[in-house]
Amino acid sequence: MENKHVYMFYEGNAGMRELLGGKGANLAEMTRIGLPVPPGFTVSTAACREYFARGQVIRDELRDEVLAALKKLEEVTGKLFEDKTNPLLVSVRSGAVFSMPGMMDTVLNLGLNDQTVQGLAEISANERFAYDCYRRFIQMFGDVVLKVDHFYFEKAIEDKKRSLNVTYDTELDAAALKELVAEFKKIVSRQAKKEFPQEPVEQLMLAIQAVFDSWNNQRAIVYRQIHKIPDHLGTAVNVQTMVFGNLGDDSGTGVAFTRNPADGTKQLYGEFLVNAQGEDVVAGIRTPLDIAKMAEHLPSVYQQFTELCSLLEKHYRDVQDIEFTVERGKLYLLQTRSGKRTAAAAVKIAVNMAEEGLIDKKEALLRVDPAQLNQLLHRRIDPAHKAKAIAKGLPASPGAASGQIVFEADDAEKAAADGRKVILVRPETTPDDIHGIVAAEGVLTSRGGMTSHAAVVARGMGKCCVTGCEELKIDLTAKTVTVKDMVLKEGDIITIDGSTGEVFAGTVPLIAPELSAEFSTLLQWADEVKTLGVRANADTPEDARKAREFGATGIGLCRTEHMFMSQDRLPVVQEMILAKNEAARERALAKLLPMQQNDFEGIFRAMDGYPVTIRLLDPPLHEFLPSLEELLVEVTLLRERGDNPELLRQKENLLRQVRALSEFNPMLGHRGCRLGLVTPSIYKMQATAIFRAVVTLLNEGKSVVPEIMIPLVGHENELKLMRELVVKAAEEVMAESGKRFTYKVGTMIELPRACVTADRIAAHADFFSFGTNDLTQTTFGYSRDDAEGKFLVTYLQEKILPENPFAVLDREGVGELVKMAAEKGRSARPDLKLGICGEHGGDPSSIEFCHLIGLDYVSCSPFRVPIARLAAAQAQVKNPREK
Amino acid sequence: MENKHVYMFYEGNAGMRELLGGKGANLAEMTRIGLPVPPGFTVSTAACREYFARGQVIRDELRDEVLAALKKLEEVTGKLFEDKTNPLLVSVRSGAVFSMPGMMDTVLNLGLNDQTVQGLAEISANERFAYDCYRRFIQMFGDVVLKVDHFYFEKAIEDKKRSLNVTYDTELDAAALKELVAEFKKIVSRQAKKEFPQEPVEQLMLAIQAVFDSWNNQRAIVYRQIHKIPDHLGTAVNVQTMVFGNLGDDSGTGVAFTRNPADGTKQLYGEFLVNAQGEDVVAGIRTPLDIAKMAEHLPSVYQQFTELCSLLEKHYRDVQDIEFTVERGKLYLLQTRSGKRTAAAAVKIAVNMAEEGLIDKKEALLRVDPAQLNQLLHRRIDPAHKAKAIAKGLPASPGAASGQIVFEADDAEKAAADGRKVILVRPETTPDDIHGIVAAEGVLTSRGGMTSHAAVVARGMGKCCVTGCEELKIDLTAKTVTVKDMVLKEGDIITIDGSTGEVFAGTVPLIAPELSAEFSTLLQWADEVKTLGVRANADTPEDARKAREFGATGIGLCRTEHMFMSQDRLPVVQEMILAKNEAARERALAKLLPMQQNDFEGIFRAMDGYPVTIRLLDPPLHEFLPSLEELLVEVTLLRERGDNPELLRQKENLLRQVRALSEFNPMLGHRGCRLGLVTPSIYKMQATAIFRAVVTLLNEGKSVVPEIMIPLVGHENELKLMRELVVKAAEEVMAESGKRFTYKVGTMIELPRACVTADRIAAHADFFSFGTNDLTQTTFGYSRDDAEGKFLVTYLQEKILPENPFAVLDREGVGELVKMAAEKGRSARPDLKLGICGEHGGDPSSIEFCHLIGLDYVSCSPFRVPIARLAAAQAQVKNPREK
Repeated sequence: MENKHVYMFYEGNAGMRELLGGKGANLAEMTRIGLPVPPGFTVSTAACREYFARGQVIRDELRDEVLAALKKLEEVTGKLFEDKTNPLLVSVRSGAVFSMPGMMDTVLNLGLNDQTVQGLAEISANERFAYDCYRRFIQMFGDVVLKVDHFYFEKAIEDKKRSLNVTYDTELDAAALKELVAEFKKIVSRQAKKEFPQEPVEQLMLAIQAVFDSWNNQRAIVYRQIHKIPDHLGTAVNVQTMVFGNLGDDSGTGVAFTRNPADGTKQLYGEFLVNAQGEDVVAGIRTPLDIAKMAEHLPSVYQQFTELCSLLEKHYRDVQDIEFTVERGKLYLLQTRSGKRTAAAAVKIAVNMAEEGLIDKKEALLRVDPAQLNQLLHRRIDPAHKAKAIAKGLPASPGAASGQIVFEADDAEKAAADGRKVILVRPETTPDDIHGIVAAEGVLTSRGGMTSHAAVVARGMGKCCVTGCEELKIDLTAKTVTVKDMVLKEGDIITIDGSTGEVFAGTVPLIAPELSAEFSTLLQWADEVKTLGVRANADTPEDARKAREFGATGIGLCRTEHMFMSQDRLPVVQEMILAKNEAARERALAKLLPMQQNDFEGIFRAMDGYPVTIRLLDPPLHEFLPSLEELLVEVTLLRERGDNPELLRQKENLLRQVRALSEFNPMLGHRGCRLGLVTPSIYKMQATAIFRAVVTLLNEGKSVVPEIMIPLVGHENELKLMRELVVKAAEEVMAESGKRFTYKVGTMIELPRACVTADRIAAHADFFSFGTNDLTQTTFGYSRDDAEGKFLVTYLQEKILPENPFAVLDREGVGELVKMAAEKGRSARPDLKLGICGEHGGDPSSIEFCHLIGLDYVSCSPFRVPIARLAAAQAQVKNPREK
Repeated sequence: MENKHVYMFYEGNAGMRELLGGKGANLAEMTRIGLPVPPGFTVSTAACREYFARGQVIRDELRDEVLAALKKLEEVTGKLFEDKTNPLLVSVRSGAVFSMPGMMDTVLNLGLNDQTVQGLAEISANERFAYDCYRRFIQMFGDVVLKVDHFYFEKAIEDKKRSLNVTYDTELDAAALKELVAEFKKIVSRQAKKEFPQEPVEQLMLAIQAVFDSWNNQRAIVYRQIHKIPDHLGTAVNVQTMVFGNLGDDSGTGVAFTRNPADGTKQLYGEFLVNAQGEDVVAGIRTPLDIAKMAEHLPSVYQQFTELCSLLEKHYRDVQDIEFTVERGKLYLLQTRSGKRTAAAAVKIAVNMAEEGLIDKKEALLRVDPAQLNQLLHRRIDPAHKAKAIAKGLPASPGAASGQIVFEADDAEKAAADGRKVILVRPETTPDDIHGIVAAEGVLTSRGGMTSHAAVVARGMGKCCVTGCEELKIDLTAKTVTVKDMVLKEGDIITIDGSTGEVFAGTVPLIAPELSAEFSTLLQWADEVKTLGVRANADTPEDARKAREFGATGIGLCRTEHMFMSQDRLPVVQEMILAKNEAARERALAKLLPMQQNDFEGIFRAMDGYPVTIRLLDPPLHEFLPSLEELLVEVTLLRERGDNPELLRQKENLLRQVRALSEFNPMLGHRGCRLGLVTPSIYKMQATAIFRAVVTLLNEGKSVVPEIMIPLVGHENELKLMRELVVKAAEEVMAESGKRFTYKVGTMIELPRACVTADRIAAHADFFSFGTNDLTQTTFGYSRDDAEGKFLVTYLQEKILPENPFAVLDREGVGELVKMAAEKGRSARPDLKLGICGEHGGDPSSIEFCHLIGLDYVSCSPFRVPIARLAAAQAQVKNPREK
């Protein structure tokens, strides 16, 4: 029928969402598949649009249709509007095509009037309940339909309570509620200038109109603007029979999950109350029973309910979160939806359902949010424990840890040797502190961003870290840290959560990572599906082993500078940097060479059979020297005191050298391949160490293909010259060892210029690895250390940027350059291997982007490897590409 | 004739370069137009290719052709090979298609032997000369043709001089030279294992073969590799009659320019020697006469010469630099080429020649190198004065100045007030030093790059400046500056050259800018031709007036931060920055508003009728605060001394605030529109000041269209919000004043992300101005302050980069992004106005690029406006685009 505007639930289905709205289509679908949904009908969105088109008038035809539907409802339920003994009561709710929760109006218990309220009192044997329903109905109807300010009703309730000297609404008895009903009707009469309508049909028509009107209330309009929902759609209206769980011991109400949402176990999980309404559960007056107890109280209903649960899971192919009511032995489902679950449950449910044949493996892969996996891979604060943070910094490295405060790396090391757990708390960390970071459970700094030294080192070690916690006033002399009025001393215990940036005083209960069999199964399925490779960023043999455990099939970024930072090497590195001439520099490099070679041998052994991409030295050399500020203070004091001219001379000299190497913008300074081009001996040493390590491995019968990565290339000539240097080193090692080996030379693409000229650069490259951290910095012109925790906070709060571009790859800007570079690179060299090694390599949205533009692999920190494997699989399921 | 390989000069012309080589075609052309070139012939490049194709054998046919040409030569010259009285002598020279100066071999005086040398002695009446020619010939022939190491000949000469106890070659008399000839022949016989050939034809054929062979000598091969000249081309060989200027008083030799190359005056300019060879001029034994004196000595030859000069200018349509010889009253031109000239001469010659009708205006525009104009626009060191620099820094702002050394801005100001000229010498400058820079003649710093504070401020003021002169050890306490062993004190005079970066001790003569009538004419022609607009970067009314004088038709960049830096405002600016709350900030801004308004009024008045682009505040706020290092030293000392706890507290507080604002990479920090978004009140104040100034101007009956430029936009939302702020300020000023006015809002495109998303950004922009300084920094990932004078030096020395990308726009990388942004911007908004305001706006190559990609204007410092006008005109002449 062309002009049909009203549909009984049993006439619709899930596909009619546009006409019936989301809720209406859902109720129709539930009815269609045989679920015991309280009967009802839906007034369509088309009726709403027509209503507005005609100047907010309900046509007689629509009224007739509604009345006809009402008649059918009476037939189906065996209840009648206006029946004084067993009246039909309905709810009237909005239901738009796109969910707009709480934005539009609802009226419950419609149909109550001075007569039918008595019928409700009788069948519920609860006069108080009946009059409470009635006064609520008048209040809701008065507010929503008649536009009476709810303040008047609230005031009347308050007055009543005061006069009876009671505190809570629940203390009002039936008599009081009856008086309130009379009072409420007077309020309506006075404020709305009309009597509260006693005629249920009139109530219904007015309520439908009010719900239509609520489509254009202020908050709904704003909501639509924000969520970009077209204004012309209109809302449907759902009229549904009210059911009551408090009509005797054969009635009840409850909520249940079809599986345990906490751990995923396949068993009903929920609560049940006999002879009660939903409100009673919420009010907490009575303690609900475990859902299993329903079997004792209402065995046949329980039987029916479990069967329905199974039906629901089959139909919706997912765990359902169900609200139900039993009215005089009859089960009604009020709502069913996909159940929220923990990460552990999500994994178990997805795998189990696939094994049960409910869903296929691809679907199972899509069922788990990769970002959620992070919860499972690190220790975390027990979510059951509601602790209040004393401060909040940046979530620099995930995981949580408790320990005693120490302020110096040496103290951390001593404490660890004594078996004490400590958190290293510092304004910021430097290479000098590495041994302290190794020894500590976690690191907390008051300065620095997500790429500060502390953050990068901690992430590399999989150690939790909070940086840039500017509320902390750290006094290294007094050995105290002050937050607002609280003063913490060395030895006091704190807990930090590197996933949220929160800092807690004292110990907070932590829970350990949960790695189930299903977890392994899911990731195995992911590996079967995904086309992107997943490698890890690892700088040490230990990291490499961890990466392999987590399923990495190679190292995408091995940063050699971290090898320069360990305490025993730093003096040699400084000797090299401060060398007065090339000969002195060569002597220092000769000492470093075997150390580096040993590092590489360890990593190669751990990754036997997999590729290892090694980036040659990247940071500016001044990062390895003492801080200019500290030296300046020392020199100032030595000058002032004048008691140690020799030391003063030394320090002045060092200060001069540090100053000469210091830079205005180190991020854009003398680093990356610029070091290799200006001082080739450093890269030469590194390349030689790598190739000698290769020879060692070959002699052990192991397989290894090193990929040597030249950082920060912006011009083809840079890569050309550095490639020549590496090739020369390789040939020398082959000559001295008599062994032949293969290797690759490529570059990190991390400058806009490299992207724009990628075709020229590709002529000298076997591979590109996108360094999206630095590429984001240069493309946006953001210094990450200065932006995060500073102006970027405003940018994200005010939605100037949709996301933090250091966390989620900016597809529009940075992504466009990455895409350009990939295309230009492959146009010049079709077999060019393409990967990404910025932190985006561990972010699901960014991984999807890498998949879409055809990269070969992503590389991320070892702890994010499982996330990346799952995200890569999801990308392939959603957008299949050839393997 | 298909197989013709030998061409008399009179058979060829300038178009036969590929066959005859550059020199051969040139000699043919000179012959063709009737110039008295010593007759000769050319063996073609085809002959050379055939020679190599046949395994380095000269075919008989080629020999026959050469002998036939020789016969014709004898006929033309009336001289004969082997003639004992008036022998024909020839030179044999290489002549490739592309000039390879000095790479291949030459033999002079070929034809001399034991007999003909006597003829030469007779006709020159100079036996010494004849035998000197002969011994030179044997030496050259021995070296080039017979491959005898020249060491043997040199040793023989040395031995001879020692035996005669003389020092110079010129002291060897005829007898000695005769003995040397005998000696040389023995050397040849001994070393080449064959006798020196007496037969001139044999000499000739061997010499031709040797010149062919020299195509493949080592240095020629390398030269071709570097200059990308194909190896297969081969060289031609030119055989030309020798002429002698020392055959009596009717002979002579000289060089002359057809116009004065120093000032461009249209009169012969050069030198002449009677009865002399070219060597005599070089040796400096005799003083040459002014060319005009030739009229007395050889009147008819002089007459012929002046006529020829006129013919040459007509033919080559340019000033010629001519070498000539008169042999027994007959004038020969040995060489003619375009004459090198000074900038002033270039301008005058180009304009005069166009006025004479020799060239058209477009050609005249192409005749002047725009970069050369710089010489004319600043005082410079007198090129006649050869001073030796004591140190060299970066050429940060062109021009030269002398003055007494002062080390403090206050001292500079005092000195200027006393009428003394000073050079401000500092490690680096800060906003506190502005008044000192204003007062000084020039600025010299030991630290900082081309965009350091000193450099930017000095360029803006058109004041000369040398930065980053790291050889200087400046001791501010002792008030000395030490360079190597030289110690200069305050008050000592130095001279700096900001065009070269050189520093001189004492005064060096300077010459003033030379702006001739021709200069104005040329620029007027440029304006008629060019399609690119030329604006200036100007921050003050004074700069704006200067820009207008130099022909700018608008201001493309007015930097508002320089207005914040003057001494009277800095305290208010600091008050604003350090404000404890928004109310305090507003109070400080309210004080700044009228000051800014006053600045804008001045600039608008100066530019009446032209557009003015004003950039809102750009630098990070910490640039306006005291230096962290200085504060740190102060605090350290106050702590140590403990005698002023109150001051210590204050300073500690300030240090804390400065530290909180300090950044790791200020270039990529909290600056540009990030300031406007986080602290909108600053931009709001600036916009209001601009619009109030507009109203003032309108009330004065002046016309003004301000273009408000939002800096450092990377995301469309940034511009969208800042545009809203500006529009709101405009509406408020319109409301308060009751005046309506127009304005534009646009953005500086200086981040790669802005280029990539230019279409989205253009939706909110009336114009784009490319800030190529910062765009180069972010695209390359170079901090200019850290790169220039540091690693960039290596990069340029080793040709890793072809040019300094901060001086010449990098078309491949940065340019590609600019092009992309221009295209994307115009695709979204076809009427988008596009300009460039980085320093590249004053560089000719970069201006050409802007022209090619269709920008509307360039903007540069006032002093470079003339350069830009000329460069823009040249770009249009070379690549015409629609006006």
